[in-house]
Amino acid sequence: MNITMRRAAAALRQADDILILTHAYPDGDALGSLFALYLLLVRMGKRVRYYTSDEPQNLTFLRVEQPPAEGFKPRFIVTVDVADRKLLGDEMNEKYGAWVDLAIDHHGSNTGYANKTLVCPEKAAACEVLYDLMRAMHESLSPEIALRLYTGIATDTGCFRYANVTADTLRAAAALMDTGIDAVKVNNDVFETKTRQYVLFERMAMNALETFHNGQIAVMTLTQEMFRKAGVGESDVQGIKALPRMIEGVLAGFTLTEKEPGRWRVSLRSRDPVDASVLCALFGGGGHKYAAGCELTGTAEEVSARLVRAAEEATAHN
Amino acid sequence: MNITMRRAAAALRQADDILILTHAYPDGDALGSLFALYLLLVRMGKRVRYYTSDEPQNLTFLRVEQPPAEGFKPRFIVTVDVADRKLLGDEMNEKYGAWVDLAIDHHGSNTGYANKTLVCPEKAAACEVLYDLMRAMHESLSPEIALRLYTGIATDTGCFRYANVTADTLRAAAALMDTGIDAVKVNNDVFETKTRQYVLFERMAMNALETFHNGQIAVMTLTQEMFRKAGVGESDVQGIKALPRMIEGVLAGFTLTEKEPGRWRVSLRSRDPVDASVLCALFGGGGHKYAAGCELTGTAEEVSARLVRAAEEATAHN
Repeated sequence: MNITMRRAAAALRQADDILILTHAYPDGDALGSLFALYLLLVRMGKRVRYYTSDEPQNLTFLRVEQPPAEGFKPRFIVTVDVADRKLLGDEMNEKYGAWVDLAIDHHGSNTGYANKTLVCPEKAAACEVLYDLMRAMHESLSPEIALRLYTGIATDTGCFRYANVTADTLRAAAALMDTGIDAVKVNNDVFETKTRQYVLFERMAMNALETFHNGQIAVMTLTQEMFRKAGVGESDVQGIKALPRMIEGVLAGFTLTEKEPGRWRVSLRSRDPVDASVLCALFGGGGHKYAAGCELTGTAEEVSARLVRAAEEATAHN
Repeated sequence: MNITMRRAAAALRQADDILILTHAYPDGDALGSLFALYLLLVRMGKRVRYYTSDEPQNLTFLRVEQPPAEGFKPRFIVTVDVADRKLLGDEMNEKYGAWVDLAIDHHGSNTGYANKTLVCPEKAAACEVLYDLMRAMHESLSPEIALRLYTGIATDTGCFRYANVTADTLRAAAALMDTGIDAVKVNNDVFETKTRQYVLFERMAMNALETFHNGQIAVMTLTQEMFRKAGVGESDVQGIKALPRMIEGVLAGFTLTEKEPGRWRVSLRSRDPVDASVLCALFGGGGHKYAAGCELTGTAEEVSARLVRAAEEATAHN
């Protein structure tokens, strides 16, 4: 059931023994909203714990240590930034997916898996929803909380760059900066610093970028060997995946990620007249008009050739 | 003479037959402030012209056409975003550098070349200064003006990422977005779109990146041949130059740009304990503690080796 900001505030005020979850492969918004909510609820005098799977190296500054569990038994489960219970990861989904009390989210695609859902699709980040929720609760911003909310908003907006940014997003960020947080350090850590492994991977990725069909189709192939050689995980190199679609004149930008030998996850970003969801549906996948995905098996060359052929037909409607 | 916002406003109100200049190799802030001021003064009923040298391809959307000169004789010269009259370029400096009436700028290093100088070093961009100036003048924002001011602020802050961003910068950007401008398109054009030539150059640049001294020194060499092969000019690829200093653990990040065969402009960004200005002074250059430059002649290998040797000594104080 979708609920209002006010109802969500009341639910949190009443709750205790709260477990906070976010999605697997967490990004800055997932971890930012998780730790911000944790700090808020601790400050409100609640017994709270959180669970995260892994944490990207460049986001460890967000972490707040929690005391040992000592027989903690959750009675209220909150998720932040989780559009679908499957995204909790197998273990957490099995354990808690069926009885989430409150989901705080900004994905219009939220499946409504929770008992109560506060979803604000017009917000750029779960952290922006939390910022509004805290205002609705008349809870003041501490710099510790503000740092995490800022990081989440900055992450999910590509540092205020993407289509999800509104004037209100910028005003929220301004208010968060007013607490005196070192936003520059956040931006540096999140956006301006690349690990040597990242740079190594980026170089390999750029060299693995090919264009076809007079530059209208771009394919970047990220192999398991590349990940292994560079010593990075998928969550470390999310930004690189956007490259094919960033190239001027590209109507279909594919990123192929090798999940296991010979099995590829395909991410497609498109521009008119290429409909990404239609194209990916040809291979049993789906998504949105300008962003969709599918899975294919075969060698990189085979998979790439099949996709390029399909994309050529799609651009032919130009 | 440094003047207040109010005095600058009065000077603009009184002026007519105004020529607006900005620096050579203009970026988004230079062109944004130039065209925004042009639009404002035209709206105020003034006779105005502007001059720009070149314009980067991705910023042509900022351009406002001006009618033919028809015997226009400037009686009031304004510069925007010009810290030093030399930056006007040889032609404009020679012609107008000595009699600039008003400089509107945000560089603390402004040399005071103008008769009256409105310099606000705490502002992230000349466009942010102009935004404040327009408020002081009680001049309303049109979407056309807001689009150019937003672009300038976004450009000079790396889309709200750099150390120059304050909460006020974000509030200014929010107010500019409130006029209904398509900020997403700006961000896409300026930050999320790469030309094929850019991508080609970026690939070559990444392959030309070397690290030394256990990853503490990074050198990227941009040759004339690379510019020629990719078909780009220096102003098109400014962002790439930051790469060496972005790598985690790098204390001295050099970018070598070949100005003419065998003559190199060296740009150095450093972290403690490497003092960039001290290091560049060894080669007759200078600058700031963490950002400095110099010029060297020789082959790429020779120049790189000399710089790396000097940087090794500088890091040895670690």
